[in-house]
Amino acid sequence: MRIYGDLNSGNCLKVKYAADFLGLSYDFVPVDISKGEARTPEFLAMSDMAQVPVVALDDGRFLAQSNAILRYLARGTALLPEDPYLQAKIDELLFWEQYSHEPYIAVLRFHMVYLGKPSETRDPEKVKRGEAALDLMEKRLSDRQFLVGEALTVADIALLAYTRLAHEGGFDLSSRPALSAWISRCERLLALPPAKGR
Amino acid sequence: MRIYGDLNSGNCLKVKYAADFLGLSYDFVPVDISKGEARTPEFLAMSDMAQVPVVALDDGRFLAQSNAILRYLARGTALLPEDPYLQAKIDELLFWEQYSHEPYIAVLRFHMVYLGKPSETRDPEKVKRGEAALDLMEKRLSDRQFLVGEALTVADIALLAYTRLAHEGGFDLSSRPALSAWISRCERLLALPPAKGR
Repeated sequence: MRIYGDLNSGNCLKVKYAADFLGLSYDFVPVDISKGEARTPEFLAMSDMAQVPVVALDDGRFLAQSNAILRYLARGTALLPEDPYLQAKIDELLFWEQYSHEPYIAVLRFHMVYLGKPSETRDPEKVKRGEAALDLMEKRLSDRQFLVGEALTVADIALLAYTRLAHEGGFDLSSRPALSAWISRCERLLALPPAKGR
Repeated sequence: MRIYGDLNSGNCLKVKYAADFLGLSYDFVPVDISKGEARTPEFLAMSDMAQVPVVALDDGRFLAQSNAILRYLARGTALLPEDPYLQAKIDELLFWEQYSHEPYIAVLRFHMVYLGKPSETRDPEKVKRGEAALDLMEKRLSDRQFLVGEALTVADIALLAYTRLAHEGGFDLSSRPALSAWISRCERLLALPPAKGR
């Protein structure tokens, strides 16, 4: 398997975290989207969505969209339990992550870390929605160890990627103890060093 | 089953289209989000994501997020083929719909139809991204009848809901013949009257 992506992108890191946890072997092929490398004819032939990550499977077929890839790689493993309702609750969070979390938590981090914008210039509407997303996670995790069921799933991996870096986008994780404990728990299970600066 | 939602919302209509196609019986319970009805204690007890649609299953459990609901209702039917790669390609489009299509196609329609903003005031960045989403669909559909595989799937239903109303957000469907033919094809299969004004 080849993973085409950028190690600064949480969406790409999700796929790496899952592949490492599952012991899948892969080559990581760097793609610099800031240099237009997701819009070359070669890249578009793999995925016309022009986004990273894209995975080249061993049979030569391609798959895009981080959460679709997570689901595909995790099928038949404990990261994606067989129970249809549990799977649906995982899907609920995967779609919520892309619609109500990533556009605020990841985008404000991008503005601060990669565009160099100071925290004070953050778009208030994005801040409000990002805070609401973290609050929902804090509340859900206040009486449970993982987001769905009793063990690590792709829902945790999908949400961990940008949540563990949320402080880089000006969000406060230290005031959210359940969320912070969940981040540490997931990092431990995924054998990741604690995110810097948290 | 009960579907809590708003018949003006494509995200809610998706679920209705799939339930009708599958012959599932349900009650549709109107929720007016503009009046805060997705933020009442009763609603939040069903789903803390505070968004419609939400489905109350016959066993009393709840499920949110339109595309998670589609996937759940369609499991074991032709709308969600068993083949893992086909399912993954469907997932690819479901996630793309929520990240790269709905925030432009649905949001600009909302601005024009429900906030009464004229077409000329549309956010140029949203217009550009919406046009790109429709272009991708037009290109994909130029040599195929359905978005994934050889028959209608939840990928078609998820994308149909707002695409068939894209003209209400100022987008031109008539210049996209493959997309227009696909809309008519899906409408026929789903027994929907053609969308007005297209």
